[in-house]
Formats: sequence, C-alpha cells, structure tokens
Amino acid sequence: MILKHKNMSDNKQLVLPERTVERLSEYRRMLFRQMNNYEIKKTHIYSHELASLHGITAVQVRRDLMLIGFTSDIKKGYNIKELINCIAEIIDTPTITNIAVVGMGKMAKAITSYFNGKRNKLKIIASFDSDPEKIGAKIAGIHCYDISSLVEIIKKEKIKMLVLTLPSSQVDDIKSDIIESGIKGILNFTSSTINLDKEANIYIQDFDIITLLEKIAYFSKENNENL
Amino acid sequence: MILKHKNMSDNKQLVLPERTVERLSEYRRMLFRQMNNYEIKKTHIYSHELASLHGITAVQVRRDLMLIGFTSDIKKGYNIKELINCIAEIIDTPTITNIAVVGMGKMAKAITSYFNGKRNKLKIIASFDSDPEKIGAKIAGIHCYDISSLVEIIKKEKIKMLVLTLPSSQVDDIKSDIIESGIKGILNFTSSTINLDKEANIYIQDFDIITLLEKIAYFSKENNENL
Repeated sequence: MILKHKNMSDNKQLVLPERTVERLSEYRRMLFRQMNNYEIKKTHIYSHELASLHGITAVQVRRDLMLIGFTSDIKKGYNIKELINCIAEIIDTPTITNIAVVGMGKMAKAITSYFNGKRNKLKIIASFDSDPEKIGAKIAGIHCYDISSLVEIIKKEKIKMLVLTLPSSQVDDIKSDIIESGIKGILNFTSSTINLDKEANIYIQDFDIITLLEKIAYFSKENNENL
Repeated sequence: MILKHKNMSDNKQLVLPERTVERLSEYRRMLFRQMNNYEIKKTHIYSHELASLHGITAVQVRRDLMLIGFTSDIKKGYNIKELINCIAEIIDTPTITNIAVVGMGKMAKAITSYFNGKRNKLKIIASFDSDPEKIGAKIAGIHCYDISSLVEIIKKEKIKMLVLTLPSSQVDDIKSDIIESGIKGILNFTSSTINLDKEANIYIQDFDIITLLEKIAYFSKENNENL
C-alpha cells in the first residue's frame, strides 16, 4: 500500500469538522513525542497505538486521517514523520500567524510565557492594555501597546488573531475596533459572550474556566453516588 | 402557565449532555448580570433574549430548559431568580466542593486568583508542588503542599477535583496517587492525555491552549481567502 497525502492545493476547499482539527493538533503533539523519544526510536505507528495514547478508538483515528487523505502501510502502520508533515500542511498557516493579547494581566502573562516558542507558525507578538504603567513596557517578552491604538497596531504588525483576557465589562468598548481591525480569529478568555456581526467573519472560541470547573463538578457528582 | 421546576430528588437520575451543562453555567452567569444590572431591573427574560445574549437560537435555549423541567410564563418569559435557583440545584453540589491545583506555576497562580471568590460552591483550597521553595508557602492565598503528600492531603481536606498544571513529563509519576486519592474530576491543563482506568471513574476535561490556538488559526485561515 502506498503512503499518500493530498497536497496543499487539493485541500484548499476542504473544511474539516472542529473536533477533527482539535484531534489532528493533539495527534501531532503525541507524534512529536514518539519521534523524539530516543528509547523508543519509533518511525511508524499503528492506528490502535495512536488511539490508545489518546484514549479514543482506532476507528476514530482512521476516520480522521482518512479525512485528510492519509493512509497507512498495512504492515508498519503510519509513517510518523510523513504524518506530522501532512498535519502541518493541513492545519498550519503557510507563514507565521501573529497573535496579540488584549488585557495584560496575570492570566495573559502566564499564557504568553507558556505558549511562545512551542509552535513555529503561531506567535504572540504584542499585547494591549489601558494601564499607563504597562503601556510601553515589555511584559512576558512582548511589547505592551495602548489599547486605544488597537486598530492601528493590528494592521501595522499584521496581527491575525486575538486572545481576550481583559475584564468582561470592557469587552463591549473594543468590539467595533476588533471588527475594524480585520482580525480573523479570537480566543475569548473573558466571561462575556462576544456577539459580532456575521459579516465580520471572525472565528471565536470561548474559554471560560468557571464553566469548565462547574461542568467537571456536575459530572464528578454524577460519578459519585456518596455526594 | 405555571412556573415549575423539578426538585433535587427528581433530578438524581438525570444526566444531562455535556454541552447542555456548559450552557446552563453560561446562562446562569448571564442571568446574574441581567438581575444585577440596576439600569435594566429585569425580573423576567424571554428565550429569544437569552438566546441573543449567547449568540444561539431560542429553540436551543428552550430545549435546554425543558431538559431541566423549567418552563416560562407565556406572557413574561422566564422568571430570572427562579431560573438561577433551578440551575443551581442542577449543577451545583449541595456542599462546597474543594479543588486543588497540582503544579503551582504562573498559570496555576493566575487561575487560582481569577477563580476563587467567583462561585460559592467551588473553591480552590490547596496546591501541590515539588519545589522546596514553594512547599509550605501560601501562594495566591492557598497553602502549597509537598506533592509527595498528595493522597494524604486530598483525603484529609476532602478535595474532590484537581486542576493539573504541572509539566507534562511529570503526569505519569502521579497517576497512581490520583487514583488512590479518590478524586472524581480533573481539569487537565497539561499537554499530556491522561489515560486512567475506567474503574477509577474520574471525569477528565482536557484543556490545551496550543490545540485551541491551532484550531482558531485553522478556521481563521478558512475565513480568509487571502492567506
């Protein structure tokens, strides 16, 4: 059986389901780890191995990889290096995507320090705040700009994504600036839902730790008959 | 039409879908805000209003609230105070649920400071680390214990949930301790998948910022034909 994967131009029209994109990102991280583990020195991996590492079924893994047109050598499994490259072609942007953080508090600092350097194609390059003590300073290795210059700096620095960590009450104030800036994706750490016009065409992913912890508490409760 | 909601004992057998639990948590936050906004002084809310605040359909809102047995006054909409109480009965634990953070780095500090005080029924009360400089100290308002005392402290302090923010490479070392401790729910901030035995009966929610940002980049790319 021949290893094959579609090239970039074939995939232009293909929009994958959200969960598949999440899993491709997770597979890649696990594949990096397998490849770099010198004790194992793995070059190939079977779908059932990859599945077991992620706590899902082999059928799910095969379905995801079929969606991106990647097939395995029936005797040796998936070629790890080729699969990593194939996933990169699908989910990475061709050039580096610049990200900015809005609201440079503790959470923003932690995120920036944790994230930068972990991926080649995504980089947090700037932050915005309204606090005069932060404006102009370098925090967690990136420059902090005045939030009033949001539109200008986003356009100048070719920033494509925002991480919102500012207080919920301030989100409404910057909505029109966000739309005007031409931003294409948002990771929303505030506890506000951001309603933007459909025409703005911005992909928004909400993250809220209160909701996550409440959800875990609910299912933990269901797990525990003694509670 | 009579406002009614099931009481706790009726709901004991009901396990809601994950997304419904997430939305109930989000509805409650929004309802608090509506109720506490003195300019609006709202006592009731229609499904289409709640839907619009969350960027979803009114049908979705009505379906979620039907699942928990809550109905509206056809003329005035949902009674906000009663709906908040009903959601609390469903998703809150009867007593305070204690949470501990494992790995007291920057992210853990940010999470603890952000979260504590935001909800009555969930509280981060302890942290664990292996760094001698942290052990015994009070960080972000909570005591930091030696990670080697994980099982003992979890049992003693009646901790039911863990937030894992330690380095991925150290996750395997504490797996058996986690199972032995009797923990029921985990928020996993590490980039490791945690495979625990089914018998351990632990609800695990993965959170990984690399995956979230890669996913947003992917869908932003799809949004932007110029890239």
